Amino acid sequence: GVLGSGDFARSLAVRLVCSGFRVVVGSRNPKRKAGLFPAAAEVTFQAEAVKKADVIFVAIFREHYSTLCDLADVLVGKILVDVSNNTEINHHKESNAEYLASLFPACTVVKGFNVISAWTLQSGARDGNKQVLICSNNQEAKRTVAEIAQVMGFTPVDMGSMSSACEIENIPLRLLPAWKIPIFLALGLFLCFFTYNLIRQVIHPYIREQKNKLYKIPIEVVNTTLPCVSYVMLSLVYLPGVLAACSQLYYGTKYRRFPDWLDQWLQHRKQIGLLSFFCAALHAVYSLCLPMRRSHRYLLIETAVKQAVEKKMTIWVEEEVWRMEIYISVGIIALGLLSLLAITSLPSIANSLNWREFSFIQ
Amino acid sequence: GVLGSGDFARSLAVRLVCSGFRVVVGSRNPKRKAGLFPAAAEVTFQAEAVKKADVIFVAIFREHYSTLCDLADVLVGKILVDVSNNTEINHHKESNAEYLASLFPACTVVKGFNVISAWTLQSGARDGNKQVLICSNNQEAKRTVAEIAQVMGFTPVDMGSMSSACEIENIPLRLLPAWKIPIFLALGLFLCFFTYNLIRQVIHPYIREQKNKLYKIPIEVVNTTLPCVSYVMLSLVYLPGVLAACSQLYYGTKYRRFPDWLDQWLQHRKQIGLLSFFCAALHAVYSLCLPMRRSHRYLLIETAVKQAVEKKMTIWVEEEVWRMEIYISVGIIALGLLSLLAITSLPSIANSLNWREFSFIQ
Amino acid sequence: GVLGSGDFARSLAVRLVCSGFRVVVGSRNPKRKAGLFPAAAEVTFQAEAVKKADVIFVAIFREHYSTLCDLADVLVGKILVDVSNNTEINHHKESNAEYLASLFPACTVVKGFNVISAWTLQSGARDGNKQVLICSNNQEAKRTVAEIAQVMGFTPVDMGSMSSACEIENIPLRLLPAWKIPIFLALGLFLCFFTYNLIRQVIHPYIREQKNKLYKIPIEVVNTTLPCVSYVMLSLVYLPGVLAACSQLYYGTKYRRFPDWLDQWLQHRKQIGLLSFFCAALHAVYSLCLPMRRSHRYLLIETAVKQAVEKKMTIWVEEEVWRMEIYISVGIIALGLLSLLAITSLPSIANSLNWREFSFIQ
Repeated sequence: GVLGSGDFARSLAVRLVCSGFRVVVGSRNPKRKAGLFPAAAEVTFQAEAVKKADVIFVAIFREHYSTLCDLADVLVGKILVDVSNNTEINHHKESNAEYLASLFPACTVVKGFNVISAWTLQSGARDGNKQVLICSNNQEAKRTVAEIAQVMGFTPVDMGSMSSACEIENIPLRLLPAWKIPIFLALGLFLCFFTYNLIRQVIHPYIREQKNKLYKIPIEVVNTTLPCVSYVMLSLVYLPGVLAACSQLYYGTKYRRFPDWLDQWLQHRKQIGLLSFFCAALHAVYSLCLPMRRSHRYLLIETAVKQAVEKKMTIWVEEEVWRMEIYISVGIIALGLLSLLAITSLPSIANSLNWREFSFIQ
Repeated sequence: GVLGSGDFARSLAVRLVCSGFRVVVGSRNPKRKAGLFPAAAEVTFQAEAVKKADVIFVAIFREHYSTLCDLADVLVGKILVDVSNNTEINHHKESNAEYLASLFPACTVVKGFNVISAWTLQSGARDGNKQVLICSNNQEAKRTVAEIAQVMGFTPVDMGSMSSACEIENIPLRLLPAWKIPIFLALGLFLCFFTYNLIRQVIHPYIREQKNKLYKIPIEVVNTTLPCVSYVMLSLVYLPGVLAACSQLYYGTKYRRFPDWLDQWLQHRKQIGLLSFFCAALHAVYSLCLPMRRSHRYLLIETAVKQAVEKKMTIWVEEEVWRMEIYISVGIIALGLLSLLAITSLPSIANSLNWREFSFIQ
Repeated sequence: GVLGSGDFARSLAVRLVCSGFRVVVGSRNPKRKAGLFPAAAEVTFQAEAVKKADVIFVAIFREHYSTLCDLADVLVGKILVDVSNNTEINHHKESNAEYLASLFPACTVVKGFNVISAWTLQSGARDGNKQVLICSNNQEAKRTVAEIAQVMGFTPVDMGSMSSACEIENIPLRLLPAWKIPIFLALGLFLCFFTYNLIRQVIHPYIREQKNKLYKIPIEVVNTTLPCVSYVMLSLVYLPGVLAACSQLYYGTKYRRFPDWLDQWLQHRKQIGLLSFFCAALHAVYSLCLPMRRSHRYLLIETAVKQAVEKKMTIWVEEEVWRMEIYISVGIIALGLLSLLAITSLPSIANSLNWREFSFIQ
């Protein structure tokens, strides 16, 4: 059974019908809404629908849960699946599923399907995120809903008791939480190093020698800033592991929890590392672009003209040649190794490595 | 039970034996074929095999289905699994599974396993595509086959009733259907812009000033063409969303189907976007190669020599310097952002993003 | 039931409790260890724990299996899950699970969960490798354990009878086995071609003309070596397929096994191809870096000065210009095509292609 006639209710009905279930939809205005649902689904009044179904998907907003109170009698003993989402993280004191359970103590409430979008439901499980997170205080009901999810082509994941409902409801609302700190860190480091390089390469020559080097800002200053950010970020990836080991040695046990800041840091290592790689890759592209610039060309021609007028035939400086060759060579090798690290952090590759392989590559 | 002794029948028998099933193979010449099958599988005459098995995999060509009519009596009440594929899309009026069902009305026919290659069967489910699409008019039989697939290590996906058989049979025959239109579109755009740039950069200077610039064709003309293609493709990714929104506003409802052309367009956005990124990446590589060319080197030296002979010491043009610095800088940032978009379109990454994160990145 | 109190036993207990199972932990010192386990898990003496549980996870080292012999009486008829790992590949003659089965012939032993790390168990199945490989001689016990794995959020994969236990125990110990031969091959080829190019570009000019070209070693010699390695590796990807076809034609059957060396070679094609792409990509980056070097700049200026002093105005050589333009153009196209091949070898992309599409791209 499905209660509601919104987008999600419709997609759910379509998918259930396609997976071979008999579906009955409860609506307050079945005649007007019948056209929205697939022909194989029976659309009737809410009380009728509830009577005919054992598992009822409650696809209505939290604000309207109380309107179901008239159905309290017929709902006794049914499994209610709460598929609702909130519009803000931790908007209400208790999760929607717990609120539903408090309204209908005679029903078994299961939280689930809220992480699946209406679009994924309709287009089938072959695209998009296939995991359905489920939680409930009743093992039997949880297993029933998990089986329905499996037949629909999704992978049910048991998230434990109803106390996880709040966590499950927050998942569709989160916005890259693991990336926030690393990105602000990278931006902060970029700003610091950019200011330093700006003073050094542009402002200082201007004050001391009145030379206008403003044209260096968009590429050269950015290009000297990026590797600094990349190096500091890379060191921040491997530093917390060392600190954690020290802490374990100091306390003589590995069962003591790390302090919160260290724990947070350890969990953000992958994101910090990927940002470090991103900066390194940008640095490579910027460096490769240097000889394309007009300024490079003009400086080259000016030097050549000066040398020709003064009839100086040799300008070869062995030391400078070697410095540059080695610098570029080491840079390419470092970028190649970082690329391997970045590739192994792709979920589909990381999943195919065992722990020994992963730590070997690291 | 397995009927047939081809590659697929053998691999199926191997896999079933490995997964702990008792397997009986039906062949018209059991003595000669026995050597091809694993020792644990019993190879016997077709009628014998059918009697001993409840679920029978029919691993023979559609053309030979009628040869099974002799077994009609012993087949009564059995579950027949049609694993066959066609050689052409929509080759026959009805799907193989429906044809089999019409030949044996006393059996329950289930379509499945045709999307799995003999190679995947034999090498185990740990590599390759793990989904097994299943359809049947009988829920019970479908569930039995789904359970077998699961024990074999595959993920059964319920595709509904037998009317989906045709769709399932076409899947192994499709050839990147979602890419056809976007690729032709990209080729068409490339041809148009290439012709325009060829006329502008090579033919026009030749006619007006008799200058031979043919050497520009392989790199410079291609390099000015690619970003044009990329830009137009990128705009084509975001245009249909705007058109769809307009259509919804105009008709005042979101339940009205979009016209077919718009629907097609909306579904190809991802592919168009990836081709746009591919053109942009090629443009970046072409641009980076510019200073490597002999022609670049010769032009540089010729300018220097000319300046030296005329004793002109300065050739610095502030405006040109700035134009190039900003052009390159913006190009790198655009490429970096497009790379992020391309990475999030990888299936394993896209699956780990929720809708809010996906639209944020877009 | 869980026997043991190490890291793995704790993480297992945490996960089982989270998935809604009732857990009883058996320890030789329950009072001291109770604090390590979640509150919902009952920690008691081993004999007590075994009596209360039907499925018992044996999370202790192989060396201590014999200490369980005191519990032989209470263990009768229970399902023992061997989750142990070795420290070396094929360290013992028989696998741990077979050894456990030989110690307790009255129990049903199932091998499983050893491929899952304690970390994955604790952090939940949403990250990391989700497959749990299971094997046992008893189908019923295997199915029970597979169901437990599924409820815990993992994907159980049936690996057949207990004889696979050895293979399953070796999985967490393997270190990129498919990459070893291809990497040594690539290193060997690199060394050969590097020596040849070193002699040709550095040692030969020094002996013949006393010219010091040592600065060419880090970049130019490496850069001429990489495409040679890449080409030879690419040909080694497509050669074994041809040899296999010849062998099939020669013997007139496709059911004859290939000789071992050819079989090995066929199985390493993907890795050889990826290394070929890696060399090609490095070659591209090295080539793009060439104009950034000081040596390039100095040679350019020296040529310009020489021309200016001799008042030679034209140095344009049409043939050299064309050779370079075409060389670069073909190189970029080749790199673009190789990139597509490399992308389609990512597991998440390869899984979404059918056989026809895969061979079309190849």
